[in-house]
Amino acid sequence: MTEPRETDTDTSDDDFQLSKQDVEAIDKAIDEGDGAALDTLLEPTHAADIADLIEQLNPSRRREFLKLYSGEIDGDILSEIDEGVRDEVIEQLPREVLAEAVREMDSDDVVDLIEDMDAPEREEILSALDESDRAAVEQSLTYPEYSAGRLMQSEVVTAPEHWTVGETIDFLRREEWLPDQFYHVILVDPRRHPIGYVTLGKLLASRREVALRDITEDSFRTISVLQDEGDVAHAFNKYHLISAPVVDEHDRLVGVITIDDAMSVLDEEHEEDILRLAGVGDESSITDSVIETMRQRVPWLGINLITALLASSVVALFENAIARLVALAVLMPIVASMGGNAGTQTLTVAVRGLATRSLTRANAMRVVRRELAVGLTNGVLFGVVLGTVTYIWFQDPKLSLVIGMAMIVNLFAAALGGILIPLGLEKAGADPALASGTFVTTVTDVLGFFTFLGLATAILL
Amino acid sequence: MTEPRETDTDTSDDDFQLSKQDVEAIDKAIDEGDGAALDTLLEPTHAADIADLIEQLNPSRRREFLKLYSGEIDGDILSEIDEGVRDEVIEQLPREVLAEAVREMDSDDVVDLIEDMDAPEREEILSALDESDRAAVEQSLTYPEYSAGRLMQSEVVTAPEHWTVGETIDFLRREEWLPDQFYHVILVDPRRHPIGYVTLGKLLASRREVALRDITEDSFRTISVLQDEGDVAHAFNKYHLISAPVVDEHDRLVGVITIDDAMSVLDEEHEEDILRLAGVGDESSITDSVIETMRQRVPWLGINLITALLASSVVALFENAIARLVALAVLMPIVASMGGNAGTQTLTVAVRGLATRSLTRANAMRVVRRELAVGLTNGVLFGVVLGTVTYIWFQDPKLSLVIGMAMIVNLFAAALGGILIPLGLEKAGADPALASGTFVTTVTDVLGFFTFLGLATAILL
Repeated sequence: MTEPRETDTDTSDDDFQLSKQDVEAIDKAIDEGDGAALDTLLEPTHAADIADLIEQLNPSRRREFLKLYSGEIDGDILSEIDEGVRDEVIEQLPREVLAEAVREMDSDDVVDLIEDMDAPEREEILSALDESDRAAVEQSLTYPEYSAGRLMQSEVVTAPEHWTVGETIDFLRREEWLPDQFYHVILVDPRRHPIGYVTLGKLLASRREVALRDITEDSFRTISVLQDEGDVAHAFNKYHLISAPVVDEHDRLVGVITIDDAMSVLDEEHEEDILRLAGVGDESSITDSVIETMRQRVPWLGINLITALLASSVVALFENAIARLVALAVLMPIVASMGGNAGTQTLTVAVRGLATRSLTRANAMRVVRRELAVGLTNGVLFGVVLGTVTYIWFQDPKLSLVIGMAMIVNLFAAALGGILIPLGLEKAGADPALASGTFVTTVTDVLGFFTFLGLATAILL
Repeated sequence: MTEPRETDTDTSDDDFQLSKQDVEAIDKAIDEGDGAALDTLLEPTHAADIADLIEQLNPSRRREFLKLYSGEIDGDILSEIDEGVRDEVIEQLPREVLAEAVREMDSDDVVDLIEDMDAPEREEILSALDESDRAAVEQSLTYPEYSAGRLMQSEVVTAPEHWTVGETIDFLRREEWLPDQFYHVILVDPRRHPIGYVTLGKLLASRREVALRDITEDSFRTISVLQDEGDVAHAFNKYHLISAPVVDEHDRLVGVITIDDAMSVLDEEHEEDILRLAGVGDESSITDSVIETMRQRVPWLGINLITALLASSVVALFENAIARLVALAVLMPIVASMGGNAGTQTLTVAVRGLATRSLTRANAMRVVRRELAVGLTNGVLFGVVLGTVTYIWFQDPKLSLVIGMAMIVNLFAAALGGILIPLGLEKAGADPALASGTFVTTVTDVLGFFTFLGLATAILL
């Protein structure tokens, strides 16, 4: 009944994925068009690993693989495949396989599968579901994207508030259909308002005559169906929730969110932050083709080119100064580099603080003051260091003074931009990670060049 | 028994944290030295929110707060406080409060609390534990930092493999001491080798006479006590695990890791990646003081200054060229900016791919080829665009040609550095995120300036 356990002897990072030998054997089976061998090889493999395998094949290879294996694709595999690749896979699946796979899925996975589909495709999938599942999925789809209502599953185990442990156990033993995984029994009143929950551990450890009401958890939180999924994931992480009931606007229980879904959301939110900060399309994936990759990156590089031209045009204002003192051109990259780096430091800490809800209205002013203090102090520190280096290099005390002063202004401006731009975006309801390096470095480049070359013109020439 | 639920009317991001009114009332109680009011205010508050509150106070205010409240600090609150702040709090706690708090904690939380302490402090805490808890904690501490052995809790619910559902339920009802949260009963053989597990849901839904062996989960994974905690977190996310048994080198069950701990690790790993990529000390926190913040950032800015001087010295090689054609200095920032941006894009995607294990040995070569193809194509694309812009701006076809060619070399080099540096670091066993912007932009700056100014010297002058 059990899968072979991970070997202890392999200490590489490659645990928890298919071994090289497996991949080679699978490759061979695809080459030889040997569907039976493929079935045997993949039989003990976890759905998540099969999904990984499908993602990692290149498109033509994937088609060959699916020709042999599409009959075996089930709901578990389908829900594990990345969105981009999944659409391709679905197109190739025989219709009856797809219908069967969808019937096996929890309602939240069906929602995830069809929410971005066009109406006819969506209808095809919905028609495979039985009446009540279909109603649950359609209900979920009425809630906004990225809301708790889309994330929840409608399969919930509830008990009337007056039941005892014994009654609950009898009910669970009688019930034909229970979710694959559930962690609490939710107590509801006659109007289906959740009023507490009991962990399965408590239920098992209590005598049959104990009232459920006497063993509910102290800490009980419900989640509004409209709550943003990022906030939900954050709450799970913060309060160590395992599952949480979701209620509609009338406080009635409509579903439950489990921690594994919250963990996926947390992971996706991180992905979005890190990719946006780097100016990469936030849906980019390691499996994308050259064309898809370019489609995501070219717009950002284009924006960057425009902002770089802006910085360039500032330099162009001071062509005469540079012509008279070429050392200015030599030192310019240092101004840009230090400003950009300091700005990115502040920006990243701010974006991360906002994402983890540790940067809040309560402490925003304190963090702004801290960043400005750090920016100013670092400016003075590196101003002195760079002034000294410049003096040793060019033997020109005025040039030292100019670059030292420029460094102070530049690192202070970097701190200002690095903290205020993401806070402003957050306040405006936008994602603070969109304040990617591109924008903050524009501020530091433009201001840095202007200060440095402007001071040089005023003092040196 | 239940906490007030989150209000639906508040649609801001401030759900799941203390309200502004609460914070103000708490502030007032601290000002007035009113310990009783503080107790009343905080009585319904979740430990995680109290921990947040303690973190967000500035140090002197925190001392005042603890003077009034330290008697109420329990194990739950203590395990939620960030490490840096926690040390401060512990110093101020009355010894008997600390001892009581530690006795309440699960063994994994005690390990987390004391692993960075000096021997005498550690001994003080250990001496508060009873014999078996102390042995469990000391055992955990023998495993390497960041290993599954440090993350696991030793409190495990097991059953002999031949038991029935009824025997297990009777055992759970009899047992005085069970973990607060557990999700599986682990079946062990007489030598304590885990051989499968049963979810509590299945246990509750099955009749008393059913053998445990007949209702174990199909998918069963054990984790080696030496496994890296990042790999463990990844496995939880990938396979939707809720808890997993941990085994020692003899395959004997020594503990269990639960998903909430795996979720924290996943969150910390993301934090490390994003902060390291930005060249910020990887332990920095929004609650750090100015001094702590500088201690973390100054070294990276110092490294950046050195690499920027390197780029500068490349420019210095071409002083004559710049003196003869100032337009070169005007265009330099574009070369640096585009190269840095493209390098960061590739780097971030690579670091993220390695972190999520979607960039593997199986597809590394494909990703390298893709990045180089994208780098080259983007180089040609932006080379043409920038060449055209330059021609319009300076009316110099040769200068256009030079900057266009430089752009091709630069974006190709950015892709090369952006993908090979993190892959190399990973292969060398280092954290690929350490290939922070600083290093990749050094490559792009140095190579970019050298190509651009070198070509200009060769072709233009």
